[in-house]
Amino acid sequence: MPPIITLTTDFGLSDHYVGAMKGVILGICPRAQIIDITHLITPYEIAEGAYVIAQACRTFPKKTVHVVVVDPGVGTARRPILMEAAGQFFIAPDNGVLANIYLREPHKIRVITNERYFRHPVSRTFHGRDIFAPAGAHLAAGVRPAQFGKRIEDYLRPVFQKPQRAGKRTWTGQILKIDRFGNIITNFYAEDFPNLEAQNVVFSVGPQEVTVIARNYAETGPGELFAIVGSSGYYEISISQASAAQRIGCVVGGPVELLIQ
Amino acid sequence: MPPIITLTTDFGLSDHYVGAMKGVILGICPRAQIIDITHLITPYEIAEGAYVIAQACRTFPKKTVHVVVVDPGVGTARRPILMEAAGQFFIAPDNGVLANIYLREPHKIRVITNERYFRHPVSRTFHGRDIFAPAGAHLAAGVRPAQFGKRIEDYLRPVFQKPQRAGKRTWTGQILKIDRFGNIITNFYAEDFPNLEAQNVVFSVGPQEVTVIARNYAETGPGELFAIVGSSGYYEISISQASAAQRIGCVVGGPVELLIQ
Amino acid sequence: MPPIITLTTDFGLSDHYVGAMKGVILGICPRAQIIDITHLITPYEIAEGAYVIAQACRTFPKKTVHVVVVDPGVGTARRPILMEAAGQFFIAPDNGVLANIYLREPHKIRVITNERYFRHPVSRTFHGRDIFAPAGAHLAAGVRPAQFGKRIEDYLRPVFQKPQRAGKRTWTGQILKIDRFGNIITNFYAEDFPNLEAQNVVFSVGPQEVTVIARNYAETGPGELFAIVGSSGYYEISISQASAAQRIGCVVGGPVELLIQ
Repeated sequence: MPPIITLTTDFGLSDHYVGAMKGVILGICPRAQIIDITHLITPYEIAEGAYVIAQACRTFPKKTVHVVVVDPGVGTARRPILMEAAGQFFIAPDNGVLANIYLREPHKIRVITNERYFRHPVSRTFHGRDIFAPAGAHLAAGVRPAQFGKRIEDYLRPVFQKPQRAGKRTWTGQILKIDRFGNIITNFYAEDFPNLEAQNVVFSVGPQEVTVIARNYAETGPGELFAIVGSSGYYEISISQASAAQRIGCVVGGPVELLIQ
Repeated sequence: MPPIITLTTDFGLSDHYVGAMKGVILGICPRAQIIDITHLITPYEIAEGAYVIAQACRTFPKKTVHVVVVDPGVGTARRPILMEAAGQFFIAPDNGVLANIYLREPHKIRVITNERYFRHPVSRTFHGRDIFAPAGAHLAAGVRPAQFGKRIEDYLRPVFQKPQRAGKRTWTGQILKIDRFGNIITNFYAEDFPNLEAQNVVFSVGPQEVTVIARNYAETGPGELFAIVGSSGYYEISISQASAAQRIGCVVGGPVELLIQ
Repeated sequence: MPPIITLTTDFGLSDHYVGAMKGVILGICPRAQIIDITHLITPYEIAEGAYVIAQACRTFPKKTVHVVVVDPGVGTARRPILMEAAGQFFIAPDNGVLANIYLREPHKIRVITNERYFRHPVSRTFHGRDIFAPAGAHLAAGVRPAQFGKRIEDYLRPVFQKPQRAGKRTWTGQILKIDRFGNIITNFYAEDFPNLEAQNVVFSVGPQEVTVIARNYAETGPGELFAIVGSSGYYEISISQASAAQRIGCVVGGPVELLIQ
């Protein structure tokens, strides 16, 4: 079985950066299956990277190595870390980009200090190539996690907002992501807010109120705004075959209110 | 020989959707070579997806499995289908996205009903991950087509326009695609309209008339509009090293007229 | 070890062109690891392609085959070439797109004339599919370089500018590339201009003067413009976590001046 290494970065697709990482990986682990999750995370947006890798990793087999590089702190003292969770491995800077996984799943986290697994000389600005890619490749090639460094407990625990109760019947949440189809992914998790379809509820995004909770796209009318439990497990605000985000004019990070009547 | 699975979707490159499909595939068929054709089909544009997969598949080896997900009807009763044609396999929704192949090539089409080859639970909105990707992976891993479901004959037969005769010497066709270089790909197929170079002809796109039929880019002048038989086999309207589409200001689906004098 | 083939083109990601090349490659060399460097080279921009492939190839293992197709002269008499350099192989049109490598590294260059390694019929407009991809795949599959054609010495030697001395203490260079983060990559090579950090220097880009030479992003203030030796080995003009290119309003190819006081 070829080992699988996935890449999630904010490096874009027009530079040589992603290619350079892959060259490093194949030099260390020639049989690796390298899979791009995305390289279009908004530059420096750790929360967006955290959402995407937590979603993407759920379908991958055990032992997959995920390399995640959204790293505004490159060149500072922020540490590279190696996490084991859900039978998979994650390599990333210690800046919260893995938090959507380690806040929910049992996990072990190590700081990566063993420079034997770095590419030398380590540049000042491109740790994706010099630290994260080679660490991921060595791990995929069979190096044991303990060889990279010691376990730590003081990794960053960012406060990614869950919806906050704002009143007896109201909650305030936020927009996690807007996808290519203009679906607005909120941070209202279906398991925490079950069966809204059977209740009288209002989602408010900006001035727009959404009162229809659909079970699938087909049961909605053309141009109609509705909420639906998306494949991510979160409530999403959508329009069938059109962009809800464009209609409403909202942005990532903006507020979403829920009223249960 | 590792089995080959290609992906053609309108999922874009910034979300986790494509990565999630690849995780599913590798969980079922770890040796698969996964090849992206494109994920930038215009959202919901079945005709564009139909053109692209019909072009792309022509260079692939026998037994390649092509998974095509342009699926505005996700969540409705539209059926997933499995097609055999030209020694290759195609998995897609039954909405016409494979029509450019099955309208020209001998083929067998089955409806995919065997839920054993689905990922469970099947979500309401992401059949790319839960139906099309796992079906393609099981097929690549050796499951026989007949195990997926019964042959059908009542699959969708969309009327993708061929140029229509509009007069004794005139035909009306349309723009199939505009590529990255601004080449305007028409639906005038060279085999149906042979040797236009040797005749006196006029292609009209909007107010623009094109009278030069070139055999290669080099024999044309700078800034000159010309028609040429592209690598796709269709007549394309081009300018050497510049965008014909931008010059003329046309869009996909717009009309193209041909006059043979 | 699966052979590695990389692709660098200006074909974009929304057409079938890149997929078609990969189909050809897998038909000839089914075990190939195909790695995309980028397909977003600005159409026809040979100098940008030359910069990107010279950067990207540095991390790849010996024997990697790099296929580079930025080819405004497709259909003309420009020749396809095969270069050996740094233990790797490069297939490209003879238009200077490999110059950033062969102007610095020992190399052997051959013209590709053996039509046995082409895909037939060779189209007029898509040599990426019909010449460059199949040549790269045959090479990766074990065909020896000498079988493709004779060595030549008269390949194109473009004058890619190095900074020119403009006065006793001043040099004039240019912008090689602007990356996704808005970093402005100049053609001032750190080896040629060492230790600027310890000197009193001014980089000028348009009306903007940059006097800070940083050793890493962290030692700079928010919103501050600075120069830094990037991972490419060139001086880059940057702002921590913001776009220097957007701030200054400059473009690829524009002038950069250096004054050493």
